[in-house]
Amino acid sequence: MLHAPPLSRAPLAPDVLAELEARFGAALHLTDAMREQHGKSEAHFPTALPDAVVYARSTTDVVDLVALCTAHDVPIVPFGAGTSIEGNALPVRGGVSVDLSEMNAILSVNAEDFDCTVQAGRRREELNLHLRDQGLFFPIDPGANATIGGMASTRASGTNAVRYGTMREAVLSLTVVTPDAKVIRTSRRARKSAAGYDLTRLFVGAEGTLGIITEVTLRLHPIPEQISSAVCGFDSLQGAVDTVVQSIQLGVPLARVEILDAMQIRAVNRWSKMDLPETTTLFFEFHGTPAGVAEQIATVEALASNNGGGDFAWSNLPEERARLWKARHEAYYAAVNLRTGAVGWSTDVCVPISRLPDCILETQADLATSNVPATILGHVGDGNFHVIFSIDPDAPHEFAEVAAVNARLVERALAMDGTCTGEHGIGLGKQDWLVAELGDAVDVMRTLKRALDPKNLFNPGKIFAL
Amino acid sequence: MLHAPPLSRAPLAPDVLAELEARFGAALHLTDAMREQHGKSEAHFPTALPDAVVYARSTTDVVDLVALCTAHDVPIVPFGAGTSIEGNALPVRGGVSVDLSEMNAILSVNAEDFDCTVQAGRRREELNLHLRDQGLFFPIDPGANATIGGMASTRASGTNAVRYGTMREAVLSLTVVTPDAKVIRTSRRARKSAAGYDLTRLFVGAEGTLGIITEVTLRLHPIPEQISSAVCGFDSLQGAVDTVVQSIQLGVPLARVEILDAMQIRAVNRWSKMDLPETTTLFFEFHGTPAGVAEQIATVEALASNNGGGDFAWSNLPEERARLWKARHEAYYAAVNLRTGAVGWSTDVCVPISRLPDCILETQADLATSNVPATILGHVGDGNFHVIFSIDPDAPHEFAEVAAVNARLVERALAMDGTCTGEHGIGLGKQDWLVAELGDAVDVMRTLKRALDPKNLFNPGKIFAL
Repeated sequence: MLHAPPLSRAPLAPDVLAELEARFGAALHLTDAMREQHGKSEAHFPTALPDAVVYARSTTDVVDLVALCTAHDVPIVPFGAGTSIEGNALPVRGGVSVDLSEMNAILSVNAEDFDCTVQAGRRREELNLHLRDQGLFFPIDPGANATIGGMASTRASGTNAVRYGTMREAVLSLTVVTPDAKVIRTSRRARKSAAGYDLTRLFVGAEGTLGIITEVTLRLHPIPEQISSAVCGFDSLQGAVDTVVQSIQLGVPLARVEILDAMQIRAVNRWSKMDLPETTTLFFEFHGTPAGVAEQIATVEALASNNGGGDFAWSNLPEERARLWKARHEAYYAAVNLRTGAVGWSTDVCVPISRLPDCILETQADLATSNVPATILGHVGDGNFHVIFSIDPDAPHEFAEVAAVNARLVERALAMDGTCTGEHGIGLGKQDWLVAELGDAVDVMRTLKRALDPKNLFNPGKIFAL
Repeated sequence: MLHAPPLSRAPLAPDVLAELEARFGAALHLTDAMREQHGKSEAHFPTALPDAVVYARSTTDVVDLVALCTAHDVPIVPFGAGTSIEGNALPVRGGVSVDLSEMNAILSVNAEDFDCTVQAGRRREELNLHLRDQGLFFPIDPGANATIGGMASTRASGTNAVRYGTMREAVLSLTVVTPDAKVIRTSRRARKSAAGYDLTRLFVGAEGTLGIITEVTLRLHPIPEQISSAVCGFDSLQGAVDTVVQSIQLGVPLARVEILDAMQIRAVNRWSKMDLPETTTLFFEFHGTPAGVAEQIATVEALASNNGGGDFAWSNLPEERARLWKARHEAYYAAVNLRTGAVGWSTDVCVPISRLPDCILETQADLATSNVPATILGHVGDGNFHVIFSIDPDAPHEFAEVAAVNARLVERALAMDGTCTGEHGIGLGKQDWLVAELGDAVDVMRTLKRALDPKNLFNPGKIFAL
């Protein structure tokens, strides 16, 4: 494992187990199967087992668990859907994995205020199913059907971020259990506030290292009257990026604009039974009134044509849109399965959009020197892209090869004034680069961590070494 | 002075003055006139003089000043344009007022990336003058021609926030001199990042209590192809608010929507030589393509008509738009000057938009019991509104009367799950209500403050008592 802190842990003492048992009863799990389920991630990191798993059913459960764990110096690591990418929820120092997936209630929907409050374990797709009848939707879409609490903790974003922002913009307020076992609400339900430090944004992206999020108030958006999707292949990467930049310059409110390189299109064609030309391709989505969407499409189509774009295939039909975005959301699996039985490694960086063509082209050239198949896809309007590697699990040298390519990718992005992670978080995988990226600012983060979690019990070993 | 911490201060020792003189020479000012200029605010708070004023010309100047002040336990308070409302920049414990207004360079504009980096003392109007030729603008508009650093520090917003967000969304990255005299950059220039704690958002709104912002990287937006303004009077406040909520539900991307009550319209008519009907009125601005703006206007006009709106007067002409928004920006002076020689007191709250009609109606009823003329105007799309009082400076009981009305206003907003300040900050004036609003969360803020500024030298006495 690369860039992970050394493991140092003691198993739970019998008196701690007895207290957990007494307080949580059947919600406490000690079986190997349950510990393994909470000690694995979707990514390439090795298993790191918790000593125990507790399913929380209320904020009070979390308060009591935090009080118990801190009294006995036991690490506590929040767990949602287990879909994070950088090992963010792995209990690398053991302790208790607190599973919030049963805290999945929708506590309120305020349609006129365009907000709702959910428990942290609610998954985003099930939230949107509930909201649909009220003409509202929650736009943040990281691909995986993650929990809202997990998405807040990793500052997730996804395909809609170019128009609707990330979890940074989507979260209005949080209920958090702090390391001293207090329950705080970080903000009221007003859409904006200048009242003191922005604790909401401090906990968004903190990966559970400063406390445990139990409830989230989210900003919602009206479902657009018209939604249309389009696909367009390009002669060159530069032409694709120029089309997006020029669209934004002309004020086109792109709802989604995804870039897939030729290798990723090949993978999508195979996995999702599509027949797209295997070239650099943009997937678009347009939201608005029927007339507004038609105007957006006409503008972008003309720009694409000027920039070496091919046929601009667009559709208003929900089933065609659904097929396209299903293929996009399966892109990770499509990429990993370029080789049968392969293991995936997904990484992401984000650069100023003007540097995106260079960053992708240089990365493609680097990938061409590697024997590990890899695809590139990204949220081009944000300058954010992913590289997904398809690794042979029986060829250990491939992990080292990917690690080296990943290192060069991140260093390339940092040299372009970009970030080592656009939306996956630091977790275990990007710790050294956080320091390379932000220097002394990481010391400020450490100071905050020590002040709020002086015993270093909350998801210890993540984001930075202390 | 209400809700202000007790003043406790010692004048600067001779050796400190000698060191300041040696390092800063002519940039150090000790005259009464200069101290008074930096010890007054636009608001009703009494003068609080700094012991010295230093004009910083570089981040290095600020670093050296911070090192000098912290070595001698001297408070240090950043000063921009002096336009804040809640006494945010008043040096209530003396020390050095560091004036950043000469740090007003534009360091870079990256048109393709829709961002720029400026020194903290740049004023927003002068920034927009510079950007205009490149087809870009910076939308955050608090009325006053504030500095960008001051706007970041108070988490300012204004008339465009309904569409373009507040300083929370507008700031990409900050250069900050921390209390230990280090220079940190809080983020790279990528549009999004999941790299560690969101220090950018921690310093935005911290009112200079955690460090001194010296440079700001801002998100910019393309100047819309078409800009149109409209004015519409309403039978009822509810009808005006319903028009806005329904517009948002229909996906109309309102760029500005301001509400002015009848008293505010009377003040505007007198001050800005307008002849608007003296009733609850909405000022709109629409941004988009010509066809898009026409469609937006048609939609909103129909909704207004259904909700008791009168004639919907709109215009594409820049000079008419400029006259309308000049009147809006002069609304504060118009309100204060309802009485000749009066002193102004402006306060703001923000509530979920569904509660806005009740909050404003109850506030109007309360104002009707007072002898102090007052107007209401606000950013209705955000649920944020201001009350501006016109106080006779020779009638001290009026200050107490206004304080009582203000207290009831804030408590009303809090009871509606709103905030005690939507965009002015806490400063001196809202400290008790911050605690009423966020409870134990304020203890978390205090913990952060003590961790980063253990000597309590950075704008001490603001936001909360330690």
